[in-house]
Amino acid sequence: MCQLFALNSREPAAVTFAFTGFSARGGATDAHSDGFGLAFHEGNACRRFVDHGRASDSVLAEFLRTHPIRARTAVAHIRKATQGAVNPANCHPFVREWQGREWSFCHNGDLKDFHPRLDGSHLPVGQTDSERAFCWMLQRLRRQFRRGLPDWPQLAPAIAELAERIGAHGKFNFLLSDGHALYAHGHTRLCWLQRRPPFGTAHLVDHDLELDLATANGPDDCMVLVATEPLTRNEAWQFFAPGELRVFAEGEEVWRQVPSPAAAGAALPALALRPA
Amino acid sequence: MCQLFALNSREPAAVTFAFTGFSARGGATDAHSDGFGLAFHEGNACRRFVDHGRASDSVLAEFLRTHPIRARTAVAHIRKATQGAVNPANCHPFVREWQGREWSFCHNGDLKDFHPRLDGSHLPVGQTDSERAFCWMLQRLRRQFRRGLPDWPQLAPAIAELAERIGAHGKFNFLLSDGHALYAHGHTRLCWLQRRPPFGTAHLVDHDLELDLATANGPDDCMVLVATEPLTRNEAWQFFAPGELRVFAEGEEVWRQVPSPAAAGAALPALALRPA
Repeated sequence: MCQLFALNSREPAAVTFAFTGFSARGGATDAHSDGFGLAFHEGNACRRFVDHGRASDSVLAEFLRTHPIRARTAVAHIRKATQGAVNPANCHPFVREWQGREWSFCHNGDLKDFHPRLDGSHLPVGQTDSERAFCWMLQRLRRQFRRGLPDWPQLAPAIAELAERIGAHGKFNFLLSDGHALYAHGHTRLCWLQRRPPFGTAHLVDHDLELDLATANGPDDCMVLVATEPLTRNEAWQFFAPGELRVFAEGEEVWRQVPSPAAAGAALPALALRPA
Repeated sequence: MCQLFALNSREPAAVTFAFTGFSARGGATDAHSDGFGLAFHEGNACRRFVDHGRASDSVLAEFLRTHPIRARTAVAHIRKATQGAVNPANCHPFVREWQGREWSFCHNGDLKDFHPRLDGSHLPVGQTDSERAFCWMLQRLRRQFRRGLPDWPQLAPAIAELAERIGAHGKFNFLLSDGHALYAHGHTRLCWLQRRPPFGTAHLVDHDLELDLATANGPDDCMVLVATEPLTRNEAWQFFAPGELRVFAEGEEVWRQVPSPAAAGAALPALALRPA
């Protein structure tokens, strides 16, 4: 399996502190040592750094821990391979352009017998179930939204439905972003927290390191962190309900939906937490 | 304007030495200081590093100069902005997936009144004429090669035709690769050389640095370097004829074509230098 991490923030923010804790799990404090990736969304563009080395001691990971790149949305992944060789092609996040925006996707889980028919609009470069799922999701969204550029109020229900369909094939915790919103699906395990003023001090779980958030952030800053396991040991991480999709924009939760346990397709009403 | 650099090699090779000379032109020995990019093709996948800082002193460029990443094809670009703001979205190389391969593209030139109709299969993320041209080229190739995965013998004539059509709008020197072949179009200025045993010593133009190629390479190595201006001062760089497209694979030139000066569409016969 793998682990996921993301930041969504009102103002561009660095992830060097969080990534220091997260990347330790890529070979030092945990066994996710088959590669890693970190993608920064800036407007419609996405800059992706991936390597198939261990995140705990890769020189690229060290560069990313020590050179802050500020972004409103950043997503990261550390890999423990289940499907596909250990090479750059199979490192998450995967990135594809749709509607003039670069979309990033990373997955924690393992999909069985998931070989959907792909029409060629997006095809996998590597061999993972994860990239196949991402390509199929974008293909479905392309067909559903042929005209104009949908935003999260239109996309969220469509993504929730796709998540439920793919989740029938196995564990499907994922992070998806176009830089405008962060879609986080907690199928079996995912947690999140919001940081806003007054800021305290954060202590990493995986490193003997703490950060004074009041010094690192401005008075108007507001941000959400999402991770497979809590990254800090003194903040109030909340776990997703099974199958829950939460959408974050500008550091706030804006939408969430928990599927009905009774039947696929009979989801509980979506909760739009604020207008688009 | 901008400058281009590429390596195509039989065996995976590092570009740290060449990139040291090339990136000096991004603010130190020349004025291409509006961003840079370096992409490494590994199989069907491409890892791209871009930054909108000066290549001569960006910390990311320094990382790339000092940490060799070995690849069979690498392409690089330093930018002097003509169209589009200075930001990551407008840094070359641009990357898109088509047919399960990641394609990289970078451009030196300036296209006027080039606003082709894009069908949405690939759309620009930034604002450059270059990315628009790349999206349109891939759109045309998608339509022409709907089935199967074409290789360079099929793609080269199609790319030559597209290069000539787009070149009617302005200077269009470019590098394009899918990791299997390198397509280099010398519209107005581009040069290349091949390195093969016996290897000598290379002296950079832009730095007081030399490299013993016999030490850096094995006895079976063979590689092609392409650049806007020669990178070394003691090797036999050859300039492209105006409008010439050359295709390189596994460190060898495999195809070339010079368009007829008389009329568009009446190109001289293409020269396939070896069977696919």
